[in-house]
Amino acid sequence: MADKGLIVSVSGPSGVGKGTVLKRVSEMIEQKWPGRASYSISATTRNPRPGETDGVEYHFRTKEEFEEMIRTGEIIEYDQYVGNYYGTPAAPLAEKVSQGKIVLCDITIEGSLAIEKKFGVDSVIIMLLPPSYAELEARLKGRGTEDDAKVSARLAKAREEIARAGEFEYAVQNNEVEQAAADIMKIIESEMLKTARQIQTIKNLE
Amino acid sequence: MADKGLIVSVSGPSGVGKGTVLKRVSEMIEQKWPGRASYSISATTRNPRPGETDGVEYHFRTKEEFEEMIRTGEIIEYDQYVGNYYGTPAAPLAEKVSQGKIVLCDITIEGSLAIEKKFGVDSVIIMLLPPSYAELEARLKGRGTEDDAKVSARLAKAREEIARAGEFEYAVQNNEVEQAAADIMKIIESEMLKTARQIQTIKNLE
Repeated sequence: MADKGLIVSVSGPSGVGKGTVLKRVSEMIEQKWPGRASYSISATTRNPRPGETDGVEYHFRTKEEFEEMIRTGEIIEYDQYVGNYYGTPAAPLAEKVSQGKIVLCDITIEGSLAIEKKFGVDSVIIMLLPPSYAELEARLKGRGTEDDAKVSARLAKAREEIARAGEFEYAVQNNEVEQAAADIMKIIESEMLKTARQIQTIKNLE
Repeated sequence: MADKGLIVSVSGPSGVGKGTVLKRVSEMIEQKWPGRASYSISATTRNPRPGETDGVEYHFRTKEEFEEMIRTGEIIEYDQYVGNYYGTPAAPLAEKVSQGKIVLCDITIEGSLAIEKKFGVDSVIIMLLPPSYAELEARLKGRGTEDDAKVSARLAKAREEIARAGEFEYAVQNNEVEQAAADIMKIIESEMLKTARQIQTIKNLE
């Protein structure tokens, strides 16, 4: 096993279960490689809430700092919400990879594609798929937080997003959390076996 | 799971244990996907021995037929031994992939590279590595079939071959048969999760 880490970037429609599956993947990574599981931490311009620490929940930045990060390309993807920026900074990802961490990212499609472009063999991008559109609809309705019109809009967006699965290297269907997490683990373990990551192994044959 | 098959092409130095590992991989495939494990069958111009059947042990061909297969590019790689040709024909591999078989090939480096070029996403190429050169030497000597000069020559060739690992997508170290076979299985399962193989899964979401 090479000591270099890997960015595992997962995208997929709203309601598909990215958060739950990645939490389970994180546990599986810790079981197999203790100390190596990690999450991508977003940068934001909103103020820290009581108990929040810079670099833990978020990287807290001023508006000027964030806009400078956009200009320099340091922000991989970003969005604005209630007057604040939220985005994914590249430098902490690169640092974690160099520390051997397996960094899980729950990110938009554009975010995953930007990660692959920036990090190449140090990253793998996966689209998480629902068991079916009917099941995705049921999950969205089951949340009870959105009216029918919003659910319909999310389903329409889900179809658009899934139509872009071909831009991803891998697609994992989330029929059950345990199965989806195990599939993602297989992808991670397989990535670790790529020759690009095994230069040290080959040197050590001597 | 897509129903299309996959060619799993494994190369590596003499004595690294390709045959033993692939036999175990074949059993693991049968356990996970009954009826889908298969081996690449070589073509040869030597005469069938008693009990041998065309298309089982070998595809038996005349010298003229074999040379025609070389001319048309139907033979992926070939060699001559005691006046007979031995080679890997492409058509049976393509047929097995279309039948959903996972076809195991124990083949030279050039053979693996030719398979990847010809079969693209329908194939995966893996280099099998020894635990160390010292251990490879011990295994070659342990066979008891070769004198020191021949073992030295094989070791020199092993170094040349392993120096080409970077031309392969994956490298698996054969520390123990069970571990090496399990690693190859992870690669196979991960290949099955590539979006290029999941077009039908995505259609079935409707």
